Amino acid sequence: MTQLDDTALDLIFRQARTHNYWLDKGVPDALLRRAYDLARMGPTSANCQPMRVVFVRSKEAKAKFAPALSQGNLAKTMAAPATAIFGMDLEFYEALPRMFHDPEARSWFAGKPKVIETTAFRNATLQAAYFILAARSLGLDCGPMSGFDNAKVDSAFFAGTSIKSNFICNIGYGDPARLHPRNPRLDFDAACRIE
Amino acid sequence: MTQLDDTALDLIFRQARTHNYWLDKGVPDALLRRAYDLARMGPTSANCQPMRVVFVRSKEAKAKFAPALSQGNLAKTMAAPATAIFGMDLEFYEALPRMFHDPEARSWFAGKPKVIETTAFRNATLQAAYFILAARSLGLDCGPMSGFDNAKVDSAFFAGTSIKSNFICNIGYGDPARLHPRNPRLDFDAACRIE
Repeated sequence: MTQLDDTALDLIFRQARTHNYWLDKGVPDALLRRAYDLARMGPTSANCQPMRVVFVRSKEAKAKFAPALSQGNLAKTMAAPATAIFGMDLEFYEALPRMFHDPEARSWFAGKPKVIETTAFRNATLQAAYFILAARSLGLDCGPMSGFDNAKVDSAFFAGTSIKSNFICNIGYGDPARLHPRNPRLDFDAACRIE
Repeated sequence: MTQLDDTALDLIFRQARTHNYWLDKGVPDALLRRAYDLARMGPTSANCQPMRVVFVRSKEAKAKFAPALSQGNLAKTMAAPATAIFGMDLEFYEALPRMFHDPEARSWFAGKPKVIETTAFRNATLQAAYFILAARSLGLDCGPMSGFDNAKVDSAFFAGTSIKSNFICNIGYGDPARLHPRNPRLDFDAACRIE
């Protein structure tokens, strides 16, 4: 295969939508694992892979999560089959001796907080985007959100670790009958130029 | 279609690789436009779409670009059919009255530099990831890099604007004979947990 066909491009890009309402259809753990196993193959700088994910599923985890959510994101998140908390490990460089072919790679980051923060944020965000498209590739729908209290999520889910939350994403099978009309997108010439 | 098949998943995730050497095969402008037209459909917070892209193609643009590149990224970038400079517009919120259904959206950002910066960086990075996977969907190969001088790129390509560079990405048809062995990836249980 050298290109995706139109139905595949529709599935992951053109027809895919951000969902707020979920069908009563479960998402098996195995499918979340498959989505991660695809997403992890995407490129990161020096293969640094800073993304860490908590999938919120149980009643207990949802109860810890709820106080961190904005009012507009609460009901749909409590109703979602799963919610990914996409985080970033600010000590990602400790894995580089095992993850990257250049043994010097750890020293490019260790002790350099500004480089660490920028690298973690950029690359964990790339990985979260790969995850969203991987989930769609497997037939799942996503509802990504940044309307929540990062500090509350960090203390509820990442206390005592070097992990900080980035953004969150509901995962399930969306109800196509309850979609908003699609908002417009910037044309190529409004966002890009060729020099 | 409800899922991508294995050959499609191989093309964009499992077999796709970061390339450093390019076949002598041109990339038409129309293909860069098609990749953007797919990538722009991906979700961003409040549909904010902060990504801006310069595709460096001409001898003149490459000459402006070269002094900003790290030594290790110079030759492969000069040889690439195109290089995307993925940037972010820190005045992205000026487009929200046209781009988002809630007329209040501009006020969530205007005058709030920290929110602007975080939102622009996160969402422009998501969009760049969508672009990488969109390019692969169309049969292109990518070589993303963050080894360059952002300030030099900003002054060469974005002077007098509200756009800042994020990272860069060579685009073309990679030479499969000159790939490094693939570096490993973190297992699900090393990067994720289900609660």
